[in-house]
Order: sequence, then C-alpha cells, then structure tokens
Amino acid sequence: MMFGAGRTIRHRVLLPLCGSRGMSSDGTGTVVPRKEVVDFVVRCMEAVGTKRPNALAIAEVLAEADYRGHYSHGLNRLEMYIHDLKMNICDANVQPSILKETAATAYVDGNNGLGPVVGNFCMDLAIKKAKEAGVGWVIAKGSNHYGIAGWYSIQAMQQGLIGMSMTNTSPLVAPTRAKKAALGTNPLTVAAPAKDGDSFLLDMATSAVAVGKIEMQKRKEEPIPKGWAIGPGGQMTTDPQTALMGALMPLGGAELHSGYKGYGLGLMVELFCGILAGGSYGPNVRKWMSTAEEANLGQCFVALNPECFAPGYHDRLQDLMNFIRKMEPTEPHKPVLIAGDPEKIRMKENDDRGGIQYHPNQMKACAKWAQDLKVSPPKTIA
Amino acid sequence: MMFGAGRTIRHRVLLPLCGSRGMSSDGTGTVVPRKEVVDFVVRCMEAVGTKRPNALAIAEVLAEADYRGHYSHGLNRLEMYIHDLKMNICDANVQPSILKETAATAYVDGNNGLGPVVGNFCMDLAIKKAKEAGVGWVIAKGSNHYGIAGWYSIQAMQQGLIGMSMTNTSPLVAPTRAKKAALGTNPLTVAAPAKDGDSFLLDMATSAVAVGKIEMQKRKEEPIPKGWAIGPGGQMTTDPQTALMGALMPLGGAELHSGYKGYGLGLMVELFCGILAGGSYGPNVRKWMSTAEEANLGQCFVALNPECFAPGYHDRLQDLMNFIRKMEPTEPHKPVLIAGDPEKIRMKENDDRGGIQYHPNQMKACAKWAQDLKVSPPKTIA
Ligand SMILES: NC(=O)c1ccc[n+]([C@@H]2O[C@H](COP(=O)([O-])OP(=O)(O)OC[C@H]3O[C@@H](n4cnc5c(N)ncnc54)[C@H](O)[C@@H]3O)[C@@H](O)[C@H]2O)c1
Ligand SMILES: NC(=O)c1ccc[n+]([C@@H]2O[C@H](COP(=O)([O-])OP(=O)(O)OC[C@H]3O[C@@H](n4cnc5c(N)ncnc54)[C@H](O)[C@@H]3O)[C@@H](O)[C@H]2O)c1
Repeated sequence: MMFGAGRTIRHRVLLPLCGSRGMSSDGTGTVVPRKEVVDFVVRCMEAVGTKRPNALAIAEVLAEADYRGHYSHGLNRLEMYIHDLKMNICDANVQPSILKETAATAYVDGNNGLGPVVGNFCMDLAIKKAKEAGVGWVIAKGSNHYGIAGWYSIQAMQQGLIGMSMTNTSPLVAPTRAKKAALGTNPLTVAAPAKDGDSFLLDMATSAVAVGKIEMQKRKEEPIPKGWAIGPGGQMTTDPQTALMGALMPLGGAELHSGYKGYGLGLMVELFCGILAGGSYGPNVRKWMSTAEEANLGQCFVALNPECFAPGYHDRLQDLMNFIRKMEPTEPHKPVLIAGDPEKIRMKENDDRGGIQYHPNQMKACAKWAQDLKVSPPKTIA
Repeated sequence: MMFGAGRTIRHRVLLPLCGSRGMSSDGTGTVVPRKEVVDFVVRCMEAVGTKRPNALAIAEVLAEADYRGHYSHGLNRLEMYIHDLKMNICDANVQPSILKETAATAYVDGNNGLGPVVGNFCMDLAIKKAKEAGVGWVIAKGSNHYGIAGWYSIQAMQQGLIGMSMTNTSPLVAPTRAKKAALGTNPLTVAAPAKDGDSFLLDMATSAVAVGKIEMQKRKEEPIPKGWAIGPGGQMTTDPQTALMGALMPLGGAELHSGYKGYGLGLMVELFCGILAGGSYGPNVRKWMSTAEEANLGQCFVALNPECFAPGYHDRLQDLMNFIRKMEPTEPHKPVLIAGDPEKIRMKENDDRGGIQYHPNQMKACAKWAQDLKVSPPKTIA
C-alpha cells in the first residue's frame, strides 16, 4: 500500500478538484450521504488504530469540509492523516493537556495528537472561558493539520458566541518582495451568529488563492491571473507550471495592490500560532506532506461573548447582512453575498440531493483505501 | 473662517499628499520638531475650547501619524477635528464611561467625546485587564474619528503586551459584486513587541488602497491599476476621476483575486465595532466630513499577554523577523520588510533631520488656521 509520501501537494489535490463542486467534467458525480462519509472515515481511522472518539473527531471535520464544498479539505485529505499515523509521526489516541491557565486564557500542549482532537479540545476550553470571563483565548503547540478552520469557529457560534481560529501551515507563500516562500497559507476564521440560524462566517486562507486553483488552470491549460503566484525567480507569472515551481502570493497580490497587507495578515496568524505557542513557525514548519519530523503546529482559538457588549447585537448584524445582500449587483446574475453564503448554497444543494456529491475519481481513491485497509467503501446513493 | 464642511475627502487630502513624504515636488520641505507639532495642535484645540489633557490626546496621535509618514492622518486632519467642535457635533471635554464589565471585557460609552480620548481610555482598560486576566477586550460606542489605529495597539505593546485595535469609518468601500459602497476602509492593527525595541506593527485599512493614492494618480494624470476602485456603474476602472465618483475596492480587488476576502475582513471589523458596540454601522455611518449627526463610531481595543503562553516568545518573533528581513529580494534594491518597517524608516529620517518634514502647502494651511484661531503657527527649523 502506498499513500504517496513522496508526492507533493500539487499532484495530490489535483484529482478530486478537476470538476467543479465534486462533479466530473461531464456533470456526473457520486452522492454519498453525509453520515456515510463520517462512518467511512471512522472505519479507515479505526483500521489504523485510532480509537472511536478521535476517529470521529477527524471524520466530522472532513465530512463538513466536503459538505461545504471545500473538497480539498475533505475525503481528499484522509490519505494524509492515515499516512501520518502509519508513519508513527502523529499520535492517534493521545489527549491534549493544559500547561497554563488564567481566567481568559489557556496554553495547551496538543501532545502531537490529531489536529481535530486538539482543535475541539481547545475550542471547548475557549467557549467555557468566554462564558465565564467574556473571552476565551486558547493557544496550542504540538498540534497537527486540523482541516477547515471554520469547523472550530462554528462550534463557538453554535453556543451563541463569536468564534475565531487560526493555524499555521507549511511554507508556501512568499512575503512581499521575497523570492521564496516563508509562510503558510495561514487561514483565519471568524463566525458570528445572526438571527434564526443565519450567520457571518469568514473562513479564508491569507494567500491570494489556494494551490488547488493554480492546478485547475494547469489542467485546463489556461493561464493564471497576475497576482496569484510567483515563479522560482520571484517574478509574477501567468504560467501555472512556473507558478507550481515557485510560491503563492499573499492576499492582495503585488506590492502595488497592497499584497503586503495579505502578507502582514499571514504573519499575524503566525504570531498567534507558532510564535505564541512555541511550536514550529514560518520556514521551520515541516514541508507539506513530509513525515520526517513532527508537525508541531501552533493553533489559536478564541471565543467572545456578545452579551458583554451592547444589547440588540443579533438584530444589528442581521440588518447589516440583509442590507448588503439586497444591494444592487454589478452583474445582475451575481448577487452580493455575505461570507459563508457560498458554502450555504452548496450545503443546500447537498441537502436537496440527500448527500455530498463527489467526483468519480475521489470515489475510486476511497475504494482503493478501503481495499488496502480492509474496510467497506462508502455506500453511495447515486 | 471656513473649515470647508462642504468639500469632500477628495479635495481635502490632496494638498499635503502631493509630494512624497511631506516634501514638495522640488524636494523642498519645512521641518517642524515633533514636540512643536504637538504644541501647535494643543494651541489650536485649546482655542476652540478643549481642556489641556484632551487637547494633548489628539495632538499626540496627529503628531505620531505625521512622524510615521501617514500624512493624511496628521496635521492634515486637524481641520476636521476643529470643525466638528465648532459645529458642536462632538464633545471636546467629556470623558468616556464604562457601561458593563467582566474580568476580560468592558463595554464603554465614548459619550461622543474626541476619538483619541475614547481610544486611550479603552486601551488603558484593555491593558489593565490583560495584565489581570490574560486578555482585555474593550468595545466602545459613541466615539469619533480616532486617527491612526496603530497609536492604540502600540500603547499595549509598550507594556509588553500584544495590542490590537479596529474602528469603523464612513462608507467608501463596495462589497464584492456590489455597485456602491457600504463599508468604510475599516482599519485593523496588531502590534507585537520583539527584542530590544524591535516589533511587528501591522496597521492597515482593509481596502485595497486609501483614497489618497487615487488622488495622487489623478494629480499626476496617470491611470490607476485595475483592482483599486470601481466607477459609479460598479465596473472596475483605471481612470482616477471615474474612481473618485465610484467606490474603493476591498483588499484583493476583483472577485477573481479574492477581493471578497478583503471585503470579509472589512465586515469583520464592522462586527467588532459598530455591531457589537451598538453604534452606527455600515451604510449608516455618517458620510465622511458630514456634521449633520453625531458620528457614533464603534471601536474595538484588545490586549493579550504573551506571558500566558509559551516562554521564549520574544526570541521566536525576533528570529522569524530576522529570517524574513534577510530573505533574498526579487529586486535587489527593495529589501524584504516586516510590517512597521516602512514607518520605522520614515521615523529615522525625521529623527535625523530633527523634526517632521512637511509639504509647504501643509504649512500654509497651518498658518491660516493659526491666524483664524489667534494662536501662534508651528515653529519650523528649516
Ligand atoms: N488547515 C489548513 O492547513 C488550511 C490551510 C488553508 C486553508 N484551509 C481551509 O481551506 C478552506 C478554503 O479556504 P479559501 O481561502 O480557499 O476559501 P475561499 O476563497 O473559497 O473563501 C474564503 C471566504 O470568502 C467567502 N466568500 C467567497 N466568495 C464570496 C463572495 N462572492 N462574497 C462574499 N464572501 C465570499 C467564503 O464564504 C469564505 O468565508 C477554508 O475552510 C480554510 O480554513 C485550511
Ligand atoms: N481612523 C480612520 O478612519 C482610518 C481609516 C483608514 C486608515 N487609517 C489609518 O491610515 C494609516 C494608513 O493605512 P494604509 O492601509 O494606507 O497603510 P499602508 O498601506 O501604508 O500600510 C499598511 C501596513 O503594511 C505595512 N507595509 C507597507 N509596505 C510594506 C512592505 N513592503 N512589506 C511589509 N509591510 C509593509 C505597513 O508597515 C503597515 O503596517 C493607518 O495608520 C490606518 O490606521 C485610519
């Protein structure tokens, strides 16, 4: 069995991203009920020795990513988690421990456990503190890849709080003016509850785009826009192949377009993650997919209680969101959206069809892993 | 005496921005010692009835802006503050009051006082709470324009803490896909102390660029890059005049370049400011320079104690900053910088010449205000 440790992100995410929204280019796709996605991941994780609660933690965040349409962070990543466990470079069954605490903060050691196990533990703690002290600010070292950042901010939101999270990641993004990468795509998320289940949910990498978008252009043999990436010489490039040998650019792109702000935000995420946590940071974070050393990622989890401030918070947030959604769009068929709306549209589509739609290639990959791990493959409904 | 209430931001900031770094286009400029900038602002503010401590609060933040090279937010803005007071739409001598408190949070009413008076009060409180509970998160309603956001984050940094601040501002930025503006340039700042006085200081509007940069291009009769602004029809424009009749674009620019992330960050700032504060928000914030109603801005101030997390924080931050600054630049004469470095370079230049260098037009404006208010104009040294 090969889980492709030698391959790079470039080839690994290409497969399931090749059609839009999980469908193949001819529009066909396979539908798997969300619960079955969870169960399949649990089966696989248990097969490599993960006890059920921890297997479930990872299964839920992967299913949520696919459900929200972020296919690069769902089943597509299962192989990576399994590989880490098989290489014994991450500890499937360990629990995080608290190293230091104040009324509003905690410093946690993830003990090299699974990212979602560490993340859920820390967000629980942040929520508890926010309910008592108004804010909970929890930072962990010794963590691993935790999936979509929004999974954690949503947990606070479900408790009526404003949730935030950030993680550092392997270096892929070049600081403004630099020839090479020194920071990860370092995502940040903020989730805020509005009325009747509506919400503002920002969940974004601080790079201009994800690597996957460049791979898509390569596959389609189309150029990439200026501002997405630089080539190995540090110059902006429109050629996806040159870009894949270079580095991503921060949000904003070139210096003329204030790309240094996106770079500053990426460095801010690193400050709250690797630097405050005492984990790996910046160029020292292990290479993407490497299992040569522990990831030792730093992650940050914040919960804030809106009750500590002005009454009427939900009404105001809803009012502003309603106003913006009703604004006249420049192109009539492209309505103005609030962060989180694109994902809500995809979740609705999945709900309507009774499950998450996958590209046939993703299903083939799952079938192969199932065979290798001697578990049953995901049951599909279409 | 006219303080130009009818004019728009466009004309008001044009004057002092016309040369780079406060110099006129022929390279000449007038140098005013920083302390004299402070004293001049105090004289002017006292002349319109502001008691000394409050006059000093505003004087210090304006002088700091010019000293850091952000001329649009220094003496250039004095006219606006004076105008607000003369129109009786802001209360020069009031103090903020605390409405609600927990161990880590406070909700403050600025009581329509001067922005820097409210800001300093709130940041003091956040610092006090961070020292006790690990975090201090303070949100104010009823505030006014508070100058450069970095002024407040720096105060926490000077106490060994990580400081953050955000403010909402008058609507100038169009949400992605929308034809018109609905959010301000909503700046955010994070200041983190490193070793021996070195620091990471991110202080940025969440728009792609400030209005001033578009005005500069207009004056030079040069086009603006795509991604800075849209015209009144909602389309991206390269014509500065069309841009000034339209709206700014968020950081990132077009949707293809993930401008929706910059827009999401602008909305996040509004969430932590007007929405949580119960002040004005989004499209309801009064128009730039309007004195038809109270500003009632919302502002957010956060302090975080790095001691609550891993030991060795300063070493790690310094190490990462050193690494990045030493990275090979794409263009040899443009070194890779850390957020805050461009301002450090300008502060050093000002220190070397014994004061802040101003464009002659800014000095002319000051002389006129001095005459109108019957105070002595700034004493220059060159
Ligand atoms: N764990 C990791 O190592 C890691 C690293 C990077 C990214 N990620 C995750 O990958 C996922 C995708 O990140 P991304 O940056 O590619 O996201 P994205 O660019 O698809 O979306 C970013 C945000 O913008 C919003 N958005 C999109 N279009 C919009 C529009 N027209 N108007 C308003 N809002 C809009 C989305 O709702 C989302 O909140 C995220 O969940 C992120 O957490 C994880
Ligand atoms: N109170 C208000 O209403 C209001 C509104 C908007 C902006 N402002 C203030 O205006 C000021 C200017 O804002 P801006 O967005 O135009 O700032 P900017 O674009 O000049 O700089 C933004 C940040 O990027 C950093 N930076 C610049 N070039 C860099 C490079 N090459 N590499 C790394 N970092 C780099 C700067 O140090 C700064 O931290 C700020 O102080 C802001 O708070 C205030």
